[in-house]
Amino acid sequence: MPTQRPSPQRIHVIGVTGLPEVTPGGRLGDLFVTAAGAQGDPIADGDVLVVAQKVVSKSEDRFVDLTSITPSRRAIDFAGPSGKDPRLVQLVFDQSRSVVREDRGRGILITETQHGFVCANAGIDGSNVAGDDTVLLLPEDPDRSARDLVADILALTGLKRLGVVIADTFGRPWREGHTDVAIGVAGLRPILDYRGTNDASGKVLRVTEIAVVDELAGAGELVMGKATGVPLAIVRGVSPELLTRPGNARALIRAKETDLFR
Amino acid sequence: MPTQRPSPQRIHVIGVTGLPEVTPGGRLGDLFVTAAGAQGDPIADGDVLVVAQKVVSKSEDRFVDLTSITPSRRAIDFAGPSGKDPRLVQLVFDQSRSVVREDRGRGILITETQHGFVCANAGIDGSNVAGDDTVLLLPEDPDRSARDLVADILALTGLKRLGVVIADTFGRPWREGHTDVAIGVAGLRPILDYRGTNDASGKVLRVTEIAVVDELAGAGELVMGKATGVPLAIVRGVSPELLTRPGNARALIRAKETDLFR
Repeated sequence: MPTQRPSPQRIHVIGVTGLPEVTPGGRLGDLFVTAAGAQGDPIADGDVLVVAQKVVSKSEDRFVDLTSITPSRRAIDFAGPSGKDPRLVQLVFDQSRSVVREDRGRGILITETQHGFVCANAGIDGSNVAGDDTVLLLPEDPDRSARDLVADILALTGLKRLGVVIADTFGRPWREGHTDVAIGVAGLRPILDYRGTNDASGKVLRVTEIAVVDELAGAGELVMGKATGVPLAIVRGVSPELLTRPGNARALIRAKETDLFR
Repeated sequence: MPTQRPSPQRIHVIGVTGLPEVTPGGRLGDLFVTAAGAQGDPIADGDVLVVAQKVVSKSEDRFVDLTSITPSRRAIDFAGPSGKDPRLVQLVFDQSRSVVREDRGRGILITETQHGFVCANAGIDGSNVAGDDTVLLLPEDPDRSARDLVADILALTGLKRLGVVIADTFGRPWREGHTDVAIGVAGLRPILDYRGTNDASGKVLRVTEIAVVDELAGAGELVMGKATGVPLAIVRGVSPELLTRPGNARALIRAKETDLFR
């Protein structure tokens, strides 16, 4: 049986350097267009931008000063065995709909955030933030953040189609290590659905819905790293169909009723 | 505070087309070197190859004919409500150390495979396989498969350093959609450990271990797709440190004692 020979697909993942420190009110669209251009990699039609959650949260002033938090008895009790900061524990509770798993001894709190994401500490970030008592929350509505960023960059550049993935670093059950996943999406399809299509041997595929935006977030992380001050990756060459029928990251949240792990 | 300005990192992800149908005993190293060369993308020093599990399993003759399986009472009982094939259910049990979650009504079986991976149906694949009664198991030892492939390709090409990631498509709790993750690794470091390093603002990072091989698997999937007959992606331009201190995919399996979800 002859194998199909589509032309090879090539995807380029480009780290964008030279961005200034992002501060509250900072216009990410401007900063990204300028930095990408200065680097000789101007943002192009059909690109997907992978953006670190941290700079989005900073631009939206999602800082919280822990000295403003009064921990409840429950937070103090949880924090005791591990020595975790009870004010941070309180803030995690405040930012969560529910606690999915907890381990007091190790100070681990896996919660469902107000958005519906399940992650450690409600996604609150205590690293890379200036000042020991300052922490950074997730964006209030990361899909809206992504949508605004797409609109800003299209307006600035005159481009027609652009995808944005806001990426954060989450752990997962059963496997060691974290990976970057999408918490905000605009301009592209979050899940590619192969169900009902034919595979290479002509059989109908029974599965598979692929969370392409999570794979894009991870690909971006490979050039962004954690310690390098690179909060933006341009992913160039993705299948054009990903930029049709755009959706958002909420589509990635599995409903409780169909989730065997809540 | 001035931002660090490392030179931009660029990663290229190249789908390799034109591979013949892989059959038992097929020498993947030969096939990959030939196809990549014919396409004008010869495998180069420092490349990471992302390889679809399916072609590895086919080359290792991991086919099973379901007509050879006699389902137990337990398998028949499980299969009843959903209409799942009781022979397949039996094979899933046979290939698993334990059942992590089951949903009889929907025919969902999440198990821990003999390797220790947690996934649906013990990773047994019924799509893209010729013959309705034929299914395909995971490789017996995917790390060994990856190691053999690295050795074969280094010998064939005279290259010095090469990484191989054998990728399979797994679901995950809480999030819709599947992503590709690493089930076999050779020649590169599975997890990049940022713990103890300084972040861009000079603070010590508290987290973060990144499962780079899972991110590489996902990046590869973006050019491989499911229906296109592209079982190989070349990832070029990864950080050279990833190819030092190589490890294997077993390092990704979280020990039961530290896993809050088993």
